[in-house]
Amino acid sequence: MANPLTQDVLVDPVVLTRTLIDIESVSRDEKLIADCVEDVLRQIPYLSTQRHGNTVMARTALGRDQRVVLAGHLDTVPLNENFPSTVVDDLIYGCGASDMKSGVALALHLAATLPDPGYDITYLFYESEEIESHLNGLHLVSQAYPEWLLADFAVLLEPTYGVVEAGCQGTMRVRVRTRGRRAHTARAWRGVNAIHAAGEILQRLTDYRPRTVTIDGCTFREGLNAVAIHGGVAGNVVPDECTVEVNLRFAPDRTEKQALAHVHEVFHGFELEVTDSAPGALPGLSAAAARDFLTAVGEEPSAKLGWTDVSRFAALGIPALNYGPGDPLLAHAQDEHVEIGKIRDGAATLHRWLAAY
Amino acid sequence: MANPLTQDVLVDPVVLTRTLIDIESVSRDEKLIADCVEDVLRQIPYLSTQRHGNTVMARTALGRDQRVVLAGHLDTVPLNENFPSTVVDDLIYGCGASDMKSGVALALHLAATLPDPGYDITYLFYESEEIESHLNGLHLVSQAYPEWLLADFAVLLEPTYGVVEAGCQGTMRVRVRTRGRRAHTARAWRGVNAIHAAGEILQRLTDYRPRTVTIDGCTFREGLNAVAIHGGVAGNVVPDECTVEVNLRFAPDRTEKQALAHVHEVFHGFELEVTDSAPGALPGLSAAAARDFLTAVGEEPSAKLGWTDVSRFAALGIPALNYGPGDPLLAHAQDEHVEIGKIRDGAATLHRWLAAY
Repeated sequence: MANPLTQDVLVDPVVLTRTLIDIESVSRDEKLIADCVEDVLRQIPYLSTQRHGNTVMARTALGRDQRVVLAGHLDTVPLNENFPSTVVDDLIYGCGASDMKSGVALALHLAATLPDPGYDITYLFYESEEIESHLNGLHLVSQAYPEWLLADFAVLLEPTYGVVEAGCQGTMRVRVRTRGRRAHTARAWRGVNAIHAAGEILQRLTDYRPRTVTIDGCTFREGLNAVAIHGGVAGNVVPDECTVEVNLRFAPDRTEKQALAHVHEVFHGFELEVTDSAPGALPGLSAAAARDFLTAVGEEPSAKLGWTDVSRFAALGIPALNYGPGDPLLAHAQDEHVEIGKIRDGAATLHRWLAAY
Repeated sequence: MANPLTQDVLVDPVVLTRTLIDIESVSRDEKLIADCVEDVLRQIPYLSTQRHGNTVMARTALGRDQRVVLAGHLDTVPLNENFPSTVVDDLIYGCGASDMKSGVALALHLAATLPDPGYDITYLFYESEEIESHLNGLHLVSQAYPEWLLADFAVLLEPTYGVVEAGCQGTMRVRVRTRGRRAHTARAWRGVNAIHAAGEILQRLTDYRPRTVTIDGCTFREGLNAVAIHGGVAGNVVPDECTVEVNLRFAPDRTEKQALAHVHEVFHGFELEVTDSAPGALPGLSAAAARDFLTAVGEEPSAKLGWTDVSRFAALGIPALNYGPGDPLLAHAQDEHVEIGKIRDGAATLHRWLAAY
């Protein structure tokens, strides 16, 4: 296949957004899009490009005083009858339109069109952000090539609808399990139905009232949701096990340990198993590069509710923010879309910031 | 592999039970056991043997006034750390010990050792009784070779613990579905969680009080159980669909249509889909051959709670009963076992009945 990321496409972040959406890249299936991105970056003479798995890194080495990272993940959640892209008026619809092919488009557009920025820039296009964190491309790079991440400041082009979203919430996935005793369903009273027992777990989830927490003027809104449920042995057997996987999104005033204690409290009496956990990040707005960026954007920051890799940079001591053209309210929704005007505004803001230094 | 069903094994219904248990035959994996059974039956000169799929039929043609069927299914529910068999004192443990390798052993033992019975006898060893009824071997035979089933009376060697169990309950499987709206779990309030909504289904199942119905002195005890639950899109997506599969066991005073109306009533407000349905059978104790058999057994009949293929014979107008050495309370349980004494008693009773005509 010819690479659809041609020079004509790269110069226009709107066309580029649509082209990226139309390269299917559900988590664990990012090889094709990474191949395309790597191929175009290697053709740009002022960038040094490397690849690890399906994560591609390209950076300038201009000897600037400071280095910034522009980062975006290449993967999307599963398609949901929203592929390929469509355009209605000034909206581009499609899986990943908001989260975050439009943000990736801005970074790739800048990489292709900004030979002489005021900062040295590291561009990171990475795999598997939407699934378990041990598969996350930034995580894998932090293990294999930690020097790729080093910078004075990082911008993640996650959907924020063109405002700066600071910090991020933590996320934890926990399996809550019920156990019973098998029996023939014709004599069900001889067994104990583990699926019926899971009704209490779902009731607690339905009754759960999540916290809202304000930190440094940024308001974080927590949530606790079942994301999977499985149980059953055969069509005539009282089942002896049922598993509900829940996802807690927690404000950055809780540590992972405190978040886990909270989950234990909510599901007191049930067997729990943590399957995934990533800390939140407090809003880190005091770094010099962060202040310059805020000035370029010109608006007050708010809280990032979704977990983002801001947290990974925070853990390395690198200030990081979320800023992207997508609408976070549309992420993972079937009618996911992005406003063409927000893509153009974002490209202009980033050009202004990176060129004016 | 040499056929483990040797002449030495066939003459002893206890050894034969254990040998049959040790031929793994979970539903849809019955080829090996059917091969073994077909092989030994074809070696018996007074039987005419045929096969359809993994169902084997063998019958005498002695010109007797009446013909009886002895039938048993070859398949078991999934193994549950109860394979191969073990013997503790006078108990044989193992998957299928009760339901119904011990019953199959009685029929196969009689086929091998009763050259001159008082009735003509049709022996039926069939596949896939434990799963969806459209895969049931007797059902398939009733379509392909209905003449194999014709008889004046049928005994199904399902577990009854050595008493006669009359009639059977009907069984129906229905998928109960909830729908929601996907959203990113970081902004869960934008979506509707279909798994949380299934809590109401599980609550109704927990609150359900099944009927007990007495017909012709036989007491039937109904039941309604979840047998499977599934939902979930991805670890960070509010799920938009959840499915609970329920199994209703209903007394034979309800038709399938009435049973379905009852399920609709219980799950009023939810979307339903019937995946499997089989009618019950009223106790049919008045036929002459049935009365002779009751005399040979010498005890009062009770109700059969499990669905059995009695219902298929009833639908053809053939009186049929359940009578087998296994304990129905142990069917499908991990500690499933059968008493050696019940196997010997059952063999003696059937010999007495079939030889004394």
